[in-house]
Amino acid sequence: MIEVGIVGGTGYTGVELVRLLLGHPEVNLRAVTSRSEEGVPLAELFPGLRGATGLTFCTPTVELLAECDLVFFATPNGVAMGMVPALLERGVRVVDLSADFRLSDAEVWSHWYGMPHACPELLQEAVYGLPETNRSSIREARLVANPGCYPTAVQLGLLPLLEQGLVNPQTLIADTKSGVSGAGRQARLDLHLCETSENVRAYGVAGHRHQPEIEQHLSAQSGAAVAMLFVPHLMPMIRGIHATLYAELQGPADGLQEMFESRYENEPFVDVMPAGAHPETRSVRGGNVCRLAVHRPADGNRLVVLSVIDNLVKGASGQALQNMNLMLGLDESTGLNHIAPSP
Amino acid sequence: MIEVGIVGGTGYTGVELVRLLLGHPEVNLRAVTSRSEEGVPLAELFPGLRGATGLTFCTPTVELLAECDLVFFATPNGVAMGMVPALLERGVRVVDLSADFRLSDAEVWSHWYGMPHACPELLQEAVYGLPETNRSSIREARLVANPGCYPTAVQLGLLPLLEQGLVNPQTLIADTKSGVSGAGRQARLDLHLCETSENVRAYGVAGHRHQPEIEQHLSAQSGAAVAMLFVPHLMPMIRGIHATLYAELQGPADGLQEMFESRYENEPFVDVMPAGAHPETRSVRGGNVCRLAVHRPADGNRLVVLSVIDNLVKGASGQALQNMNLMLGLDESTGLNHIAPSP
Amino acid sequence: MIEVGIVGGTGYTGVELVRLLLGHPEVNLRAVTSRSEEGVPLAELFPGLRGATGLTFCTPTVELLAECDLVFFATPNGVAMGMVPALLERGVRVVDLSADFRLSDAEVWSHWYGMPHACPELLQEAVYGLPETNRSSIREARLVANPGCYPTAVQLGLLPLLEQGLVNPQTLIADTKSGVSGAGRQARLDLHLCETSENVRAYGVAGHRHQPEIEQHLSAQSGAAVAMLFVPHLMPMIRGIHATLYAELQGPADGLQEMFESRYENEPFVDVMPAGAHPETRSVRGGNVCRLAVHRPADGNRLVVLSVIDNLVKGASGQALQNMNLMLGLDESTGLNHIAPSP
Amino acid sequence: MIEVGIVGGTGYTGVELVRLLLGHPEVNLRAVTSRSEEGVPLAELFPGLRGATGLTFCTPTVELLAECDLVFFATPNGVAMGMVPALLERGVRVVDLSADFRLSDAEVWSHWYGMPHACPELLQEAVYGLPETNRSSIREARLVANPGCYPTAVQLGLLPLLEQGLVNPQTLIADTKSGVSGAGRQARLDLHLCETSENVRAYGVAGHRHQPEIEQHLSAQSGAAVAMLFVPHLMPMIRGIHATLYAELQGPADGLQEMFESRYENEPFVDVMPAGAHPETRSVRGGNVCRLAVHRPADGNRLVVLSVIDNLVKGASGQALQNMNLMLGLDESTGLNHIAPSP
Repeated sequence: MIEVGIVGGTGYTGVELVRLLLGHPEVNLRAVTSRSEEGVPLAELFPGLRGATGLTFCTPTVELLAECDLVFFATPNGVAMGMVPALLERGVRVVDLSADFRLSDAEVWSHWYGMPHACPELLQEAVYGLPETNRSSIREARLVANPGCYPTAVQLGLLPLLEQGLVNPQTLIADTKSGVSGAGRQARLDLHLCETSENVRAYGVAGHRHQPEIEQHLSAQSGAAVAMLFVPHLMPMIRGIHATLYAELQGPADGLQEMFESRYENEPFVDVMPAGAHPETRSVRGGNVCRLAVHRPADGNRLVVLSVIDNLVKGASGQALQNMNLMLGLDESTGLNHIAPSP
Repeated sequence: MIEVGIVGGTGYTGVELVRLLLGHPEVNLRAVTSRSEEGVPLAELFPGLRGATGLTFCTPTVELLAECDLVFFATPNGVAMGMVPALLERGVRVVDLSADFRLSDAEVWSHWYGMPHACPELLQEAVYGLPETNRSSIREARLVANPGCYPTAVQLGLLPLLEQGLVNPQTLIADTKSGVSGAGRQARLDLHLCETSENVRAYGVAGHRHQPEIEQHLSAQSGAAVAMLFVPHLMPMIRGIHATLYAELQGPADGLQEMFESRYENEPFVDVMPAGAHPETRSVRGGNVCRLAVHRPADGNRLVVLSVIDNLVKGASGQALQNMNLMLGLDESTGLNHIAPSP
Repeated sequence: MIEVGIVGGTGYTGVELVRLLLGHPEVNLRAVTSRSEEGVPLAELFPGLRGATGLTFCTPTVELLAECDLVFFATPNGVAMGMVPALLERGVRVVDLSADFRLSDAEVWSHWYGMPHACPELLQEAVYGLPETNRSSIREARLVANPGCYPTAVQLGLLPLLEQGLVNPQTLIADTKSGVSGAGRQARLDLHLCETSENVRAYGVAGHRHQPEIEQHLSAQSGAAVAMLFVPHLMPMIRGIHATLYAELQGPADGLQEMFESRYENEPFVDVMPAGAHPETRSVRGGNVCRLAVHRPADGNRLVVLSVIDNLVKGASGQALQNMNLMLGLDESTGLNHIAPSP
Repeated sequence: MIEVGIVGGTGYTGVELVRLLLGHPEVNLRAVTSRSEEGVPLAELFPGLRGATGLTFCTPTVELLAECDLVFFATPNGVAMGMVPALLERGVRVVDLSADFRLSDAEVWSHWYGMPHACPELLQEAVYGLPETNRSSIREARLVANPGCYPTAVQLGLLPLLEQGLVNPQTLIADTKSGVSGAGRQARLDLHLCETSENVRAYGVAGHRHQPEIEQHLSAQSGAAVAMLFVPHLMPMIRGIHATLYAELQGPADGLQEMFESRYENEPFVDVMPAGAHPETRSVRGGNVCRLAVHRPADGNRLVVLSVIDNLVKGASGQALQNMNLMLGLDESTGLNHIAPSP
């Protein structure tokens, strides 16, 4: 068995990793850390785990984590960069679900995340963990930066268009909608059911950290400078992201549907829906899949791409497992074939 | 007392009219009709009305309705146009909450609503009931076409920009989000709690009836041909519309905030929020108000306007009362000062 | 105008008081206090109040509050008892929405609330503010202890049975269900939408503070020692309490429905529904009403009473206004005729 | 591979069976029937199944179903009894998720279900599919009557008490709360999100079909005549049942916790939580488990048992799979180890 650990197991991405890893046939979940909950059984904090694991939270130390073949960081931003160098030195491979290694430029990172970067030398080495663009690099990587939830939904929706140079890369718009779990497991008044239920609001219109992440990687992927207007919204639900993407055609749009289908035909976790479809977030709940539909309303010069994921699965922990599978030479889909329950 | 009636009192806009009219100090709600519920007390169908009214549903007849000074139609599309001419002949004034008189061109109307128009000659006379643009015409009107819910939120958000010629009228985008009550009080599987809760989806991307309504009236108002990409989404909540509006600057953007504040400074039911604000749908729940915020992210050439209303109040029944107040020479705000409960 | 103030205006009962008082035609809301938000406009914290009030939060001082004729405390337990004596001395009348004066025995109070009582001498003077039992005393009271939300729903459901000696007072069961707003406006992880939505759970089965409150007042009212099994549950919604009450007959049960109707026939805010009805919490949302239905399944020896209220209105702030109206000699219903919106 | 079929695959228990069977390693899902959707791919009706199955709905015929080793009926009440005899004759084993074979007395059945029973002779043969009481009979059964959702939660909660004769079997109360999926996938106005969200209500207080089912089987199991007051409530959520059970002690209550633990220690799908616990419905979402806690408030003579299940899994389709595993001689837990996602 392959030994894995999770640093930061008390957040929503952490416990989702636990759920997925406990169902993975080829890995053993050796350690789940939490400083604040040290000694507490996981199943006490998360009763849904009763009967599934006897693990208790432990304090994260390099010694302990060095016993793992691979370690996930499901920590707040700024934590992973403090421990990753020591783990890499010991030969432990890392998938970081936080934002610490998602941007290649340390100054840009500092600007958006409000602190200096602790190990800028690793920013170039870190591989951005979007298998649909970086599969072969991920296989070889020591350190994978797992993409943000919004960036996953947005990039998968726009990649086919940008790679083909079909749309103007300077006038993209991403109007994105997320469930509340995207804000994390925190005692915050603004996440109280009474403050979020029966309510929709935008936030971060002046600027959101996921925007530079998307722009950097879409630019690299398409070879053109990408500029995006990114407007996130909070939805009154637990899980799910719906990205509504707007792009201007700069060439003929024949064969759009086929282009999307062909781009993703070998991708196990991207589902191009039939022409005219409207994907629903619930169709991906709990599953590691992105469902897409491309529309060209009134045969005009603007395209609309609809892209849905579960923010905690393909947008975080599921994609992290997908990356782990690639890094370890396993079948990419192992342990990731959950069907979304209906309803 | 002024006598008013409601044709079609069993839908959500109908019962919301009942709630608002029962609290209006200068009108008497004389009749609420429903063919299917004839003879049933309103309070039996809607227990929240117990103690507030002893009215029973009655069958709509011209004789009965002719006893009213003003009649509201809260009926499915296609019903009002069958009865309105007879009522106007009897001197009854009409506010139609359905779509029957919202478009000026009978052919366009037929195209979108899938039936011939029964009284095209009234399309020119009907006044579009958006007080913020048509106040004086509404005062004189015999027949007011109450705007759609999405069109109210979208137009109020874009009017200041278009009236000033500040943005390109051909590249507008409205990404709109609505609660489920917008779909009406109908026994439909796709509106089941299990099909709509914990879920977000777009619909009608290929074309929605509210798009020509918005384009027609914004064009008339701004004197320029307006073209809009309109993408509605269904949100897992009961009430509320959040319109996220995108527009390209075609001139200097100095004084945006002041422009919005000045445009609406005398409007009792439009609230321009401070620069940088993110209006929430719950802040307008149950109230007849549209709250707006205008953003220019990164000082770029694109603007984002956020506009929220309660789809059943400023988006339907509240606006209908506002129109009624104007038509009857009452203070425009009478009976419309509900504060949104928090939470 | 009568001058009133609110101590503690940032919680859900505080802001609900603001909403209701702003719509009350005979009082002026002079001051709303909050130490933490001093100087902040109410409408900044609660955007739903924009346009409705220009008040800012102020620091609570006896001097300031002494300018009011009546002061509401919407504070955490333990705060009111520290300020009430000084206000009473100055001739200010008080309605306390917290639990400080709900129990007559200081030791029992200390046991349940975990602190000594600061002014036990006032416990006898304080009038329990359930108008349906204490109307005349409330009229004369200097200090009214506004009942808890659960106790309001439970007592109104059981009073007719106990007053008539119809049921065994020692085997009562109250299975109660509350929306999350009952837990208050607090930054607590367990109130996060992701922790409360799509979830039902009981809490406090071993003992809840509302149990001694109910037992004391039902015993006093019925003249028999009442013992109740009280099991509260948290529901995935914002507002509403549904109390399902079980009682054993100890005599003939003829005329149950009439007995309930007769007990409450002059009560403006208690609605006895028809035999066989199942009241819904949404039918009282935002309104100061308790709707009841009494059932005797299979003509057996056990009764089931269903009782619903809005926990923030008849269960807190609405009832506080009702008490204020009585204390000030106003019509009891003034400012309290809100119809629950549907839907 | 073992071949199985589902009659009635368009309801919530049908599609949940599909989800669970597709993940079962030892069965092949051969046919899923629906008269109304004949020829339609399952994944078209339920997009969450895209990529997981290529099956299309087919018309149910005895010939087709006779190719299966075992057939599930997930049909409305009254359908299974029309087809089961022919299938049994052909040697096909049956698990019926509807109510057709849950009661042993044809007259009682007719009384509650409003139609004559089509094959009363099978009522004695049918085995009630609660493995925790009937495991060995289920193994041998040709026809298993899968229990109702409420009855599963209620019986598992009360069995230890009744089997030990610890409580009075004549004064039991079950106050039960269910998510809306319990009402089925139907186009009904009263299941509309706007009619069910932000709302709690009781229903069927005068009598519910699950009451005779519970009474019959608990009586058989305990050897005493059981009488129960059963009051179901509708909760504003999709999945989950919370049963709050009240019982009167008729003997010493020492060792309650141990008694529950010991009763279920070998049960793979019943989790007795620690003393003092309050199980949450979300802790069982999507999983085939019942979590229980037993309380004795204030050391009094009444007990409270809290019991939670996912109504569609342990309350329906999961339990059906558990029964199938037993009937086919497979490990009882095969394909049933889903962990409830958190959140």
